Amino acid sequence: MSSQKLLATFEQFLKVNLPLTKSFHPHFDHAFGEMLDVGGKRFRPLLLLSVVENTQPLLVSNALHVALAIEMIHTYSLIHDDLPCMDNADLRRGHPTLHVSYDETTAVLIGDALNTHAFYVLANAPLSAEIKVKLISILSGDAGLYGMILGQAIDCFFEDKPLNIDELSFLHVHKTAKLIAASLLMGAVICEMKKGDQETLYGFGLKLGLLFQVQDDIIDATLSKEEAGKPTGNDGHKNSFVNLLGLAGANREKQKLLEELKSELTKLEEPLSQTLRDIINNYFKG
Amino acid sequence: MSSQKLLATFEQFLKVNLPLTKSFHPHFDHAFGEMLDVGGKRFRPLLLLSVVENTQPLLVSNALHVALAIEMIHTYSLIHDDLPCMDNADLRRGHPTLHVSYDETTAVLIGDALNTHAFYVLANAPLSAEIKVKLISILSGDAGLYGMILGQAIDCFFEDKPLNIDELSFLHVHKTAKLIAASLLMGAVICEMKKGDQETLYGFGLKLGLLFQVQDDIIDATLSKEEAGKPTGNDGHKNSFVNLLGLAGANREKQKLLEELKSELTKLEEPLSQTLRDIINNYFKG
Repeated sequence: MSSQKLLATFEQFLKVNLPLTKSFHPHFDHAFGEMLDVGGKRFRPLLLLSVVENTQPLLVSNALHVALAIEMIHTYSLIHDDLPCMDNADLRRGHPTLHVSYDETTAVLIGDALNTHAFYVLANAPLSAEIKVKLISILSGDAGLYGMILGQAIDCFFEDKPLNIDELSFLHVHKTAKLIAASLLMGAVICEMKKGDQETLYGFGLKLGLLFQVQDDIIDATLSKEEAGKPTGNDGHKNSFVNLLGLAGANREKQKLLEELKSELTKLEEPLSQTLRDIINNYFKG
Repeated sequence: MSSQKLLATFEQFLKVNLPLTKSFHPHFDHAFGEMLDVGGKRFRPLLLLSVVENTQPLLVSNALHVALAIEMIHTYSLIHDDLPCMDNADLRRGHPTLHVSYDETTAVLIGDALNTHAFYVLANAPLSAEIKVKLISILSGDAGLYGMILGQAIDCFFEDKPLNIDELSFLHVHKTAKLIAASLLMGAVICEMKKGDQETLYGFGLKLGLLFQVQDDIIDATLSKEEAGKPTGNDGHKNSFVNLLGLAGANREKQKLLEELKSELTKLEEPLSQTLRDIINNYFKG
């Protein structure tokens, strides 16, 4: 399956598998599905599904449940990041954010529901109990206080306080890279790949996540709100690779990470290696 | 072990098992542990541990991990409930709430971290993978969009809109009772009790949770902020059993539920039956 076809399969799966409470709350179910269903790049599901499809293609249908769980975690993190007490953003994935279209209460609670429900989806996925426990441990660690949430807390706390390059990298390894690395690792765990390959994929993912953030900072500094589908621009105080290294420096860092990633890929077997190379080339042109 | 000793064992376990990120964030670790460690009745851990200790006493040390996970979920729900966009409460467990002692960002993120980390604790508990997957499915369902979060969403949305008694019961079955029922059921799952007993305990827990809420509404209507350790009183508009049934009606409902619970307990074997009877008598005097 091409990346495009994998993504279409995921979108279809997501639509069919949106949970419904069917309660008398007038908008809970709609709000729960809304941010999930308005699109997004689906970068993390694609990484996971690409690992599985190029290693154990018969397990792709099982892996879709896991991809959905990861996308739920990612989506909850966006909803909470956009809250008035954090980024106070009114636009996400080209749509009004939940606290704008409903209210802040709804945004907090739908974020909470997506966070919790990701683990319900994992616990009920058609995979062995041993594998599910491993997946839940990875996701709750890398999306939790050993990963994404710690990164977000550091990002918020140091918003107006300058970080050095090591601290900024720590921030983004935790806030962004660990969930991306987890997506690759979880694919490897589903396929029961050997330990060495799992470690290669995880390390590759951490670097890829950092590249993702460097690219995001470059987009923030160069695209308009309409082009990016979310608020952009900054006042020069924000901790970003562009503010710390300059636009040229951030572009150099991007190229350096790209080269390192391509060299890492030689450690993996075909066709997985080529597929990941294609994904990188597609997402990080130039 | 007496209930008191079980609770002391839990407090000790909690203190030793508070996770530390040891990052350069100045207060993340402290804030994570703060609300967990300032006390609270530990009603849910006590229920779970009581089931295990009276059924498979050798599994109590394993069950402590599960009790901690449940208390993390309960604590996160309190932190988010107290946010300015929900109850806007400044006092909890007799201490300033997190958005008061730090800020709103910290309160949202520490709540998120507790929610996610509960599943990390479960995934890494010393129990079989099969049992852990069952526990994670129960907790993520009853604390998630099929339980607690839906209840909270209904509570917030209908804050100034009158509910009838069936709707109010639905609200509290979801917001409060399902997590209490899950605590008993998770104890039963750890002990691999037979299906019928598991169902009895879950049904008992739903009723107990409703009783808990009726009692909470009575406390709200009759105790001062200092006596209760949290803000109390209401303006007569809030959806509560006291406002819907009157104080005498709420007290009658409490007595009715107490009688039903005691009759349910005859279905369970000793010593579990007597232990649960003692807990009820202790928590719901009069």
